[in-house]
Amino acid sequence: MLNQLIRHKTIRKYSDRPISEQTLNRCLTAATRASNTGNMQTYSIVVTLDNDIKHALAPAHFNQPMVEQAPAVLTFCIDFNRFDKWCDLRHAQPGFDNILSFSSAAIDAVLAAQNFAIAAESEGLGICYLGTTTYNAMDIIRILKLPKMVFPITTITAGYPAEVPTHQEDRLPLDGVCHHEIYEDYDAKEIERIYSYKESLPTNQQFVRENGKETLAQVFTDIRYTKKDAENFSKTFLEALRHQGFLK
Amino acid sequence: MLNQLIRHKTIRKYSDRPISEQTLNRCLTAATRASNTGNMQTYSIVVTLDNDIKHALAPAHFNQPMVEQAPAVLTFCIDFNRFDKWCDLRHAQPGFDNILSFSSAAIDAVLAAQNFAIAAESEGLGICYLGTTTYNAMDIIRILKLPKMVFPITTITAGYPAEVPTHQEDRLPLDGVCHHEIYEDYDAKEIERIYSYKESLPTNQQFVRENGKETLAQVFTDIRYTKKDAENFSKTFLEALRHQGFLK
Repeated sequence: MLNQLIRHKTIRKYSDRPISEQTLNRCLTAATRASNTGNMQTYSIVVTLDNDIKHALAPAHFNQPMVEQAPAVLTFCIDFNRFDKWCDLRHAQPGFDNILSFSSAAIDAVLAAQNFAIAAESEGLGICYLGTTTYNAMDIIRILKLPKMVFPITTITAGYPAEVPTHQEDRLPLDGVCHHEIYEDYDAKEIERIYSYKESLPTNQQFVRENGKETLAQVFTDIRYTKKDAENFSKTFLEALRHQGFLK
Repeated sequence: MLNQLIRHKTIRKYSDRPISEQTLNRCLTAATRASNTGNMQTYSIVVTLDNDIKHALAPAHFNQPMVEQAPAVLTFCIDFNRFDKWCDLRHAQPGFDNILSFSSAAIDAVLAAQNFAIAAESEGLGICYLGTTTYNAMDIIRILKLPKMVFPITTITAGYPAEVPTHQEDRLPLDGVCHHEIYEDYDAKEIERIYSYKESLPTNQQFVRENGKETLAQVFTDIRYTKKDAENFSKTFLEALRHQGFLK
C-alpha cells in the first residue's frame, strides 16, 4: 500500500477500455470512507462518462486533452444543498452559507478525491488531477448544473493507462518540506540546497532555455503561474463563491 | 489497498508506543508523492512530538484529548514562504498572495495529508483528523511560528491504536452522494430515502433524545455546527487569511 503511494505517477493518456460500473463503484465507495467533518458528508461526486458533457467541460479545464480522452471525469464538489434540504424537512435551521463551512467541506471533498485516486490506482487505473477546477468554477457550475450551496473543488480524470511516464516527477528533499516541532524558517543557504536537485535536472534546464528565461523560478512566475492570471482567477473565484452562497 | 480504505476507522486513543523515525519518514515520503499543482510543492508539514508544544496547541483544537495524547501531531500547511524565497534568490517575481493560489495550495496540502493518513494506517498506526485547524488558525500560526504566506489547513494526530472503535461510522448510500453525468437535484422523497438509515440508528436516536431535540438534523444545526459559530469562525478565518497575506 505504502509502496503504491510512493510509486504514484500521474497518467494523462488512457486506453479505450471502459471502466466497469463495479470497479467505479468500488472506488467511489472507498472515496466515501475518507474522514469527514462531523460525518455530515457535505460533498457530492459528479461522475461524467458522456462524451458530449466531457466536450462541454473541456474548455473550463483549458482544453487539457485528458478531459475528453479519459473514460471518466469525476468532479468533486462541496455540497450543502443536500444537507440543507434535509434540514428543511426536519425543521432545522442550517447555517453553512459562509467561508468556514466552505473550507471544512472543501477539505472533506479533497480527502474523498484522494481516496478515490488511490483506490483507482490499486484497481489498475491511472488518474490525473485537474487543478483548473477552481479557476473556471462558474463554467463548471453551469455545465454540471450545480445548484446554490454546491461548488466544484477538484476534478480527477480516470482510465486504464495507454502510456505510463518513464520517470517519476522529482520531489524536494523530505527535510525541505517537513519541520521539527515548529516551523523552521529558511535562510538562503537552505533554499539553495532544497531547490538544487530540481534546478539541476536536464528537463528543467531545457525548460528554462526553451522559454528564454534565466532561472527555473522565472518559468513558474512569468509563464506558468503568473501574478496577473492568479489575480484574475481570484476575482472570478470570489464571484463564484458569492454566487453559490458562501460569501456575503 | 482498496480494502484498507474501505475499512478505515478514526482512532482517537493511542498507546504510549512511540513512532520510529523510520516509520514516520516513510509516511512523510508517501505524503510528498501525492499529486500537486505544477510540482511546486507549496506546502509544509510541521511534525510536533514535543509534549509542551502539543500542550500549547491543544486549546486551538478545543482541547480535544487526541492532541496531547497522540505521539505525533502533524499540521499540514499551505507554504508559499519557501517558494517565494526561492523566487527572490532567482530574480523571479512571485504572485501567490491571493485566494486562488491559497485554494490550489490548500488542495495540495490536503492531498499530502490523506496520503500520510493512508500510509500511516498501512504501517499499523491509527489517525484522527482535526477539522478545528482552520477555526483557530491564528493561534496555530502563533504557536508553530508560521511566517506570512504560510497557513495551517488541516491536522492529523497519529499513534499506535490503544482502542479501536467496534463499529464503523455510517455513511449515506453511495447513490445519495454520487451523480450521473451532471448534478441531479434532490426532491423530498430522495432526501427521506438518503437520510433514513442515518436517522434510524439507535446511537443517533439516543443523541437526539439526550440533546432534547426533535430531529437529528437539529442536533447538527443547533448544537454541533451552529450558524453563529460558523459565522464567528468565518470572520477569524478571513482575518487570518488577510494576516498571512492571501486576501487584500
